[in-house]
Amino acid sequence: MFLGKVFVTLKKSVLDPQGDTVRKSLHTLGYSMVEDVRVGKYIEVRLNSQTREEAERELDQMCARLLANPVIEEYRLEVEEDDGQ
Amino acid sequence: MFLGKVFVTLKKSVLDPQGDTVRKSLHTLGYSMVEDVRVGKYIEVRLNSQTREEAERELDQMCARLLANPVIEEYRLEVEEDDGQ
Repeated sequence: MFLGKVFVTLKKSVLDPQGDTVRKSLHTLGYSMVEDVRVGKYIEVRLNSQTREEAERELDQMCARLLANPVIEEYRLEVEEDDGQ
Repeated sequence: MFLGKVFVTLKKSVLDPQGDTVRKSLHTLGYSMVEDVRVGKYIEVRLNSQTREEAERELDQMCARLLANPVIEEYRLEVEEDDGQ
């Protein structure tokens, strides 16, 4: 069993109104040291693949096809062995 | 300048309907090796703090107060130096 971790972020050129809202809220709470906030997705996928390479290849496909929107988002993934939780 | 990375996930005991929907969609696409999916948030915060320790402390407070809901979510954070992008 493998655990895939996927980090989906908006491309730098894409505006992030949710991140802007969080930044303003943090300023209101007094955290004036906050310069910028970007909000993305963090997805954990448990895979019953045979090998780590297979798990990485499959997960990369899933990202391109479903988990991320390649027009506005980019993604990064990690796969580690998972011996149950 | 420091870059804080925050990973917010639902507690294990909390149901994740969004993750279930993604898992079913992946099965429909033919990825039958997928056992479980959990969807969380990934937040990048740029901080103008003096030291890494200060940045970590401030970011941890922000998570507890705003970025995560401690009733149903848990969070993990990393802080690294950021020399611009």
